[in-house]
Amino acid sequence: MSTNQASARDLGLRFEGHLPTGPLNALTDVAGVKLGHVTLQGDGLATGVTAIIPAEGNLFRSKLRGAVDVINGFGKSAGLMQLAELGTIETPILLTNTLNVGTCTEALVRRALAENDDIGRTTGTVNALVCECNDGSISDIRALGVTQDHAAEALKAAAPGAFAQGAVGAGTGMTAFGFKAGIGSASRLLEIGEERFTLGALVLANFGPAGQLMLPDGRRPHPKDLAEREQGSVIVILGTDLPMADRQLQRVAKRAGAGLARLGAFYGHGSGDLTVMFTTADRVEHDPATPFAPQRRLSDDLIDLAFRAAAEATQEAVLNALCHAPGTRGHSRYYPSLADWLKENQQ
Amino acid sequence: MSTNQASARDLGLRFEGHLPTGPLNALTDVAGVKLGHVTLQGDGLATGVTAIIPAEGNLFRSKLRGAVDVINGFGKSAGLMQLAELGTIETPILLTNTLNVGTCTEALVRRALAENDDIGRTTGTVNALVCECNDGSISDIRALGVTQDHAAEALKAAAPGAFAQGAVGAGTGMTAFGFKAGIGSASRLLEIGEERFTLGALVLANFGPAGQLMLPDGRRPHPKDLAEREQGSVIVILGTDLPMADRQLQRVAKRAGAGLARLGAFYGHGSGDLTVMFTTADRVEHDPATPFAPQRRLSDDLIDLAFRAAAEATQEAVLNALCHAPGTRGHSRYYPSLADWLKENQQ
Amino acid sequence: MSTNQASARDLGLRFEGHLPTGPLNALTDVAGVKLGHVTLQGDGLATGVTAIIPAEGNLFRSKLRGAVDVINGFGKSAGLMQLAELGTIETPILLTNTLNVGTCTEALVRRALAENDDIGRTTGTVNALVCECNDGSISDIRALGVTQDHAAEALKAAAPGAFAQGAVGAGTGMTAFGFKAGIGSASRLLEIGEERFTLGALVLANFGPAGQLMLPDGRRPHPKDLAEREQGSVIVILGTDLPMADRQLQRVAKRAGAGLARLGAFYGHGSGDLTVMFTTADRVEHDPATPFAPQRRLSDDLIDLAFRAAAEATQEAVLNALCHAPGTRGHSRYYPSLADWLKENQQ
Amino acid sequence: MSTNQASARDLGLRFEGHLPTGPLNALTDVAGVKLGHVTLQGDGLATGVTAIIPAEGNLFRSKLRGAVDVINGFGKSAGLMQLAELGTIETPILLTNTLNVGTCTEALVRRALAENDDIGRTTGTVNALVCECNDGSISDIRALGVTQDHAAEALKAAAPGAFAQGAVGAGTGMTAFGFKAGIGSASRLLEIGEERFTLGALVLANFGPAGQLMLPDGRRPHPKDLAEREQGSVIVILGTDLPMADRQLQRVAKRAGAGLARLGAFYGHGSGDLTVMFTTADRVEHDPATPFAPQRRLSDDLIDLAFRAAAEATQEAVLNALCHAPGTRGHSRYYPSLADWLKENQQ
Repeated sequence: MSTNQASARDLGLRFEGHLPTGPLNALTDVAGVKLGHVTLQGDGLATGVTAIIPAEGNLFRSKLRGAVDVINGFGKSAGLMQLAELGTIETPILLTNTLNVGTCTEALVRRALAENDDIGRTTGTVNALVCECNDGSISDIRALGVTQDHAAEALKAAAPGAFAQGAVGAGTGMTAFGFKAGIGSASRLLEIGEERFTLGALVLANFGPAGQLMLPDGRRPHPKDLAEREQGSVIVILGTDLPMADRQLQRVAKRAGAGLARLGAFYGHGSGDLTVMFTTADRVEHDPATPFAPQRRLSDDLIDLAFRAAAEATQEAVLNALCHAPGTRGHSRYYPSLADWLKENQQ
Repeated sequence: MSTNQASARDLGLRFEGHLPTGPLNALTDVAGVKLGHVTLQGDGLATGVTAIIPAEGNLFRSKLRGAVDVINGFGKSAGLMQLAELGTIETPILLTNTLNVGTCTEALVRRALAENDDIGRTTGTVNALVCECNDGSISDIRALGVTQDHAAEALKAAAPGAFAQGAVGAGTGMTAFGFKAGIGSASRLLEIGEERFTLGALVLANFGPAGQLMLPDGRRPHPKDLAEREQGSVIVILGTDLPMADRQLQRVAKRAGAGLARLGAFYGHGSGDLTVMFTTADRVEHDPATPFAPQRRLSDDLIDLAFRAAAEATQEAVLNALCHAPGTRGHSRYYPSLADWLKENQQ
Repeated sequence: MSTNQASARDLGLRFEGHLPTGPLNALTDVAGVKLGHVTLQGDGLATGVTAIIPAEGNLFRSKLRGAVDVINGFGKSAGLMQLAELGTIETPILLTNTLNVGTCTEALVRRALAENDDIGRTTGTVNALVCECNDGSISDIRALGVTQDHAAEALKAAAPGAFAQGAVGAGTGMTAFGFKAGIGSASRLLEIGEERFTLGALVLANFGPAGQLMLPDGRRPHPKDLAEREQGSVIVILGTDLPMADRQLQRVAKRAGAGLARLGAFYGHGSGDLTVMFTTADRVEHDPATPFAPQRRLSDDLIDLAFRAAAEATQEAVLNALCHAPGTRGHSRYYPSLADWLKENQQ
Repeated sequence: MSTNQASARDLGLRFEGHLPTGPLNALTDVAGVKLGHVTLQGDGLATGVTAIIPAEGNLFRSKLRGAVDVINGFGKSAGLMQLAELGTIETPILLTNTLNVGTCTEALVRRALAENDDIGRTTGTVNALVCECNDGSISDIRALGVTQDHAAEALKAAAPGAFAQGAVGAGTGMTAFGFKAGIGSASRLLEIGEERFTLGALVLANFGPAGQLMLPDGRRPHPKDLAEREQGSVIVILGTDLPMADRQLQRVAKRAGAGLARLGAFYGHGSGDLTVMFTTADRVEHDPATPFAPQRRLSDDLIDLAFRAAAEATQEAVLNALCHAPGTRGHSRYYPSLADWLKENQQ
């Protein structure tokens, strides 16, 4: 595990949005969300798994409501078709490298089988959710280094509270905008009526050509001597406790793309960019006791608050991924640290 | 107005589905739905307007929840993009010929302005919903014969209860599968828990090449000497009082396409086929009193009931449109009546 | 491997469409397509793998153009997001049971790595295409019985020409409409200008509640004493050598759904129904020699031919899957053979 | 007509992208594109029509290939469903205020009827393309001030070359980010192989809450004393002469949204944001002479060039709309000029 201590804010970047951050400024500010990493380094590997357990309890029996927005579908994530159709999440979410999606899918399937005797017998099967980026610039991705045990370990490590960001877990071998990148997170608080809600973002950032990054202050940090083609991707996980109707969840998920574009991204051809969103409100029971279950629909007049939060938290999460990741040597070049660039270019 | 008295069931066709029909076997079995026709004939015209007022009250202030499914988007209907985004219906639905969509749109806009002083001033604008088919095989569609007054008249004529089907209103000049067609309707009842719900379909049927029609008993009625290319379209309006979440409404709307395919349709290139669906349950207030409104989500385990109802009611509605329409001469040929074919081919 | 010899046509079913079948009446009528099965039976298993190699050569270097249409996304197939985005297929297509998608994905990844040294090093990764249905009514799906070796074996077995249908390969444990089902195929020939093209369908049929099946002659065969809920799915693979633009391929793929609906299907909630389509015309090079490559666009005026072919071939392929599969005992009941029903109910 | 002379570049804003602008830095840099305005002012009106004729010749007989990307579908534009299905444009594109979409639709229909005797008789109907924003903050939008004659006049005024930007044509009453806005344009040149292509953007900019605008240099100009809710929209028209396959056109259209987000937009709930794209390459004949027409597909390896161009030209076009529009009094407040802000805040 290799991360810098300082976040984007610690390094002087300012975010001028109107919404306050949660206490951790991370996805785990959403009550019930747990996160764990397994980091693999050595033998040519710089990869891993990051596990997100989005809520308490047996997720198959008490599903979360969710949505997916595909920004650019050049990617191999698993489980998105059913999420798009039904709007429900029934396993943890695993992040890993592209070629290990099959392994992590099977790990989630076996976990669900172990927890639920009826799957594949008296009820249907289970939809495993695995998202990925290509860490082949740094790691030997052809080795398929992640095993089902690693996936299980990341799930076991999942805990509430603060977590490591940068070159850790699935982010170990990731790069973005020519810099070393990886896992990043941020959150926003929403005051609605008398209540306070949280929206958090977690990104696996591995996208953006060198020279394209735009900081919130308009500066464009360029890692010297790099003019490579983009090969990356970015996965955005948005979580909230805000109650919303299906279509609203979908629309909020789409605003993560605006946060990416504020960073200078134009959703490059080879970049598999997508957002998975969930709310912990109004869960869906696998065996409901009654034909109708109540759900809450946010007034559309207030949804811009959630749109802003999604865009801002995504933007900041990517900058946190960059700031927390130390400079690293890849197969063909060195990926510097944005933190170092910021220190050298203090305003 | 020109319609036969007998429905598809009256003429001996049997529908073997498991669900009973509503008392009228029509969209107006859904409580609160009103329907009115204006029929234009003479001077080369065989066209009109059919108005559907989906619920009581000011629809702009208290919107209906809805969905749209585009089966084949070769069509010019208005208002669908916003329906797809927001899932709300805020005007009546007008059906007319293709080239008069602009006229009917403006009629709905002016009606909404008259009823709501704040539109375009202190609140936003209004999304008019107009669907169409091309009746140019029988009517002089180039004359743009429908006026805003006709649209207003159809809206004024809208009433609950039984309504004329066949070559009436927007259906006056429509043809399907080489036969004369037009407006048709059917409905199904759903028993869920202790409650009974209704799902109704109304179609503007103007699709399907001659020889392609398949009856529920497997027979394929062919109007002699016709081998024309399909130029038509079909609009399906599904209404219900069943409470459903956004994604569920969308999924039910999609099953109308299965009903069309059971008739032999393959969604021909030139046929603009789409479904607009609404539920009268859990309406959406334009100026909500509270940040969150409760909605009811049907258990997905029960949604197949609504899927069946949508497919069956759509299939039967098209056959009713065909059976109610008398044979009619068009520009280049005679469009016979399916009712006559059924009488001549009694089993 | 367990299949009846007689096809739907052999058993007396007539298909009244306008298009002739190919010589084999199967997907392999499309030049270059190869198909192989591995069937697993015993130890509670009744499952397998069916491999489709859609064209000659290294598919990663010379990709096929394709499309995907999701009819009902309750499913776990892999590789569809990238197919939807890019419209290219770069691996064979594997069919298997739901819980072994991860295994088969990894098998395809390892095959592509072995054939292409640059994947994950100097070029991007690879998008494996795996589709699935749940065979848990007959097989012990919780055993995850399919291995990567089985997948490799099915790929190795792939050959041009006639192939076994029914309870074989991925179809071994599948059921549909209360009958035993599995793999089925059909094809149609299209005369366009002076040229002849082929469109073939292959289905993995595992959908439809008992009593819902409708034969082309209008009869509804009901397997006695069965009133179960649908838990299945259907995968349709459409292949052709007809040149088409991207949007045209997509539109043709959608017409498979009409073929399913003609059988009585209403795309049940729990049924993961989708179509993957490819054309062998105008392939896409991984390393193109020039910035622009010519493609051919079919006149939209002629596309109804392909629409008809897709609907008809899909409908017949499902009936072939049913007719070829012998009656089989499942965990909780016996699934009879449609062939037997047809013999007992000769007209 | 009311516009400032200076563009965003004239006022000192720098665009650091890698691509050069066309000679006019406008949509009309694409060969064959013509543009005309009609501006209505007085009697409470501040509205108009902007007509884009995307290519020479009878567009119905020789259609352009196109695509639509709906960013946020809170809007009432006409003709988008058929564009999405078929990927063809067969009329000019009119821009106007929201409530006059019906009027402008009918104007385009009547124009197509006059030019094509066969429409509605021996061939199908015509799909009119009209896009809109709500100019009710400045204009009396309830007056429905635009007539069919105005639409015809704008079409007649359409000419190649430079055109007025800012508060002109459909842009007369539009505002964005609390400033006066309207029509803006920009273009980029793409060198591919030995050839040079042009991609141009034209925007009708009427979106973004006050305080949200971000300049390319990171500054956020805030019009004092404005804290209103967003009610606007933005229409982006992208035109090019670059040959592309259907799916590629669609993907490029989507990148306009990245350009909007770079300006600080998060696609607000009430903002109908969409992109219509066309290419003048490889047009589609209404009556093709042969079954297959050749089209050119750009190598996907080069498509990032077009993605960049779409994002950059859209971003700059919006800033040009803002810079060209002089400060204007609306119903409830004054909308200042961004040009004035830039002069007062010179760096």
